[in-house]
Amino acid sequence: MLKVAVLGYGVVGSGVCEVIRTNAKSLSEKLGDSVEVKYVLDIKEVDSSDPEAAKITKDFSAILNDPEISVVAEVMGGATFAYDYTKQLLMAGKHVVTSNKELVATKGTELLSIAKEKNVNYLFEASVGGGIPIIRPLYSCLAANEINRITGILNGTTNYILTKMFREGSDFATALKEAQEKGYAERNPSADVDGIDACRKIAILASLVFGKEVECNKVKTIGITGITETDVAYAEKLDSVIKLIGQAELKEQKVYVSVEPRVIKKGTPLASIDDVFNGIMVNGNAIGEVVFYGPGAGKLPTASAVVADIIDCLRNDRNREYFWTKAESDFVADSKNNFGCYLIRTKNPEEIIKKLPIAEKVSVVDGEIGLVTEQIREEELNEVLPYAVSYMKLA
Amino acid sequence: MLKVAVLGYGVVGSGVCEVIRTNAKSLSEKLGDSVEVKYVLDIKEVDSSDPEAAKITKDFSAILNDPEISVVAEVMGGATFAYDYTKQLLMAGKHVVTSNKELVATKGTELLSIAKEKNVNYLFEASVGGGIPIIRPLYSCLAANEINRITGILNGTTNYILTKMFREGSDFATALKEAQEKGYAERNPSADVDGIDACRKIAILASLVFGKEVECNKVKTIGITGITETDVAYAEKLDSVIKLIGQAELKEQKVYVSVEPRVIKKGTPLASIDDVFNGIMVNGNAIGEVVFYGPGAGKLPTASAVVADIIDCLRNDRNREYFWTKAESDFVADSKNNFGCYLIRTKNPEEIIKKLPIAEKVSVVDGEIGLVTEQIREEELNEVLPYAVSYMKLA
Repeated sequence: MLKVAVLGYGVVGSGVCEVIRTNAKSLSEKLGDSVEVKYVLDIKEVDSSDPEAAKITKDFSAILNDPEISVVAEVMGGATFAYDYTKQLLMAGKHVVTSNKELVATKGTELLSIAKEKNVNYLFEASVGGGIPIIRPLYSCLAANEINRITGILNGTTNYILTKMFREGSDFATALKEAQEKGYAERNPSADVDGIDACRKIAILASLVFGKEVECNKVKTIGITGITETDVAYAEKLDSVIKLIGQAELKEQKVYVSVEPRVIKKGTPLASIDDVFNGIMVNGNAIGEVVFYGPGAGKLPTASAVVADIIDCLRNDRNREYFWTKAESDFVADSKNNFGCYLIRTKNPEEIIKKLPIAEKVSVVDGEIGLVTEQIREEELNEVLPYAVSYMKLA
Repeated sequence: MLKVAVLGYGVVGSGVCEVIRTNAKSLSEKLGDSVEVKYVLDIKEVDSSDPEAAKITKDFSAILNDPEISVVAEVMGGATFAYDYTKQLLMAGKHVVTSNKELVATKGTELLSIAKEKNVNYLFEASVGGGIPIIRPLYSCLAANEINRITGILNGTTNYILTKMFREGSDFATALKEAQEKGYAERNPSADVDGIDACRKIAILASLVFGKEVECNKVKTIGITGITETDVAYAEKLDSVIKLIGQAELKEQKVYVSVEPRVIKKGTPLASIDDVFNGIMVNGNAIGEVVFYGPGAGKLPTASAVVADIIDCLRNDRNREYFWTKAESDFVADSKNNFGCYLIRTKNPEEIIKKLPIAEKVSVVDGEIGLVTEQIREEELNEVLPYAVSYMKLA
């Protein structure tokens, strides 16, 4: 009997227990031994009818000191207790798997380094893309490639809101309210709508594939709160949709990384990824482009990724070598050097046309015009912003 | 220095050598040691200017008996020499990785069993979906799931032809000719257009996820040679496209498996996968649905998957436990028990309407009508086929 512990009995934690219970038979066939949750750490009271009630404990040290426990799933979230516990567990030679993107994005470098030193795993498949397999494919299946670029719809809540705005012509506030009513958005939706969640995820992906830490605070991040129905109309005029896109691209040893709403041509792979789904497009020098698509959040999908990591640890009781190091301070390019084509809404087109190469003009509302630039650097864009109503990058 | 051998210097074999040459630096960083192709087995003459010219050999035993070689890529295709060589290599305790779907589909059970016994790997990521990561994600990332169903566009050539027929209104013969001119289809296109290639691939996927051998000759297989412009018009009338779909579904310990052209609603994930791309949708009991999308063939994408398997063997020098066993003879359900909704073209609708539940009627050409059935079994369908012009399953 293999025994594991789960830290946190919230949505993901209860999902992890449920997957292990529900799929007990097939898991035991895969592992050659049955697997069971021995402890669930949570401070809240759990109803005695709950199937895991007998396993609930408030005593972290019981888990830390139990030699039967070799794998722990940290699904409590946050970067304080979770950080402290994870560190102690790794130091004690236990594998830790997690869905905690905040912790991986902020403390991953240190935690991976401890894991390596102790020859255990710190795995985080569930931290990006919910249940979509992405971390392991990047590490294993695409290992033969030099990855040039990762582009993804990494946050389901904002994708749901944007989908509503396009399909039903809702404004942002209405669409957000619906997302909250459906439980897709938090009461305080900032982490989603301001792009913070997507920023953590692209930081994790970029750190993993480029091997050096991409710090969140260096990622240019724009959320979707400013998107209006007029922006939607512009996108439609360009036969496009708007998606919140996290992207990281390596060029000449520097990574260009951003999270921002982007205008995406219909018919391209990410444009059709709607509702709460996530999609991640990876560009490698041998494979070309591959896309991973699926439920980016949700109890069981996320739990499915956590349990896959647990299985990996139980099957391969040693370090997986996921690893990145601290980066030199200029590894992440200053965002003024980011580049792309932009849609610029303006009431003063002449001022912009004389400074920037323009590929296309679109007219949607009276009194302003949309200019689509050729590829420029953000520095060039910034110079004309005084003449712009707003702008959005194309993809 | 890690040394590997490549059997076969065709498209994929030269791609494998190219990826190992081109990405030498990043591969050596990942492996902690440099990796080099030591032998390339081929009977054809290779120009002395070829970068691998010095490594070409006709002597298989040199590879078999070289203790420096722990991993061999079999990319020669076919099931005769490839079978013999693979067996000898595995018996000799060498890992074998392959893109050879014919061999995996027909001899996989035996070869995996030898690999297990010898504690080496027989890996075949490249055998399905070209460069798209699918085998390893099914085994590792989705390990927490009980997989219910796999549905895929598994053959790029037929997908290219069908895309042409829809986009440009070409008939089958014209579209095939174009595919041949572009090098996407062989001079003898039977393996692709008759569904044989897709059949091998769905057989491999089904065997892997359900753990028991699904033999190709038990898979109901219909190719695309019979698809006409009228069929295309029917699909369009149903706001759908036609795709050659391989599907395997587990229900009550039996697998229902087929390869056939299917009418797929636009806006669903597989409908937008066009040209030579492949897409594979996996349904698991925790994850729900995930889709893997990318180049299903081609020199470098396929080589990328082969080299990923090589890296896996070099990183983890022991059996990966990919495995399936012989199945009981009724594991694959008789195709008369396959089920679904069907579009039936008929000149005698009354005869069919009185026998089958009909959900929708569509009219495209004079003198016949298209009936869309509710879900029925193929046995029920077969009874009305005397009254049908043709039929196609919906998806």
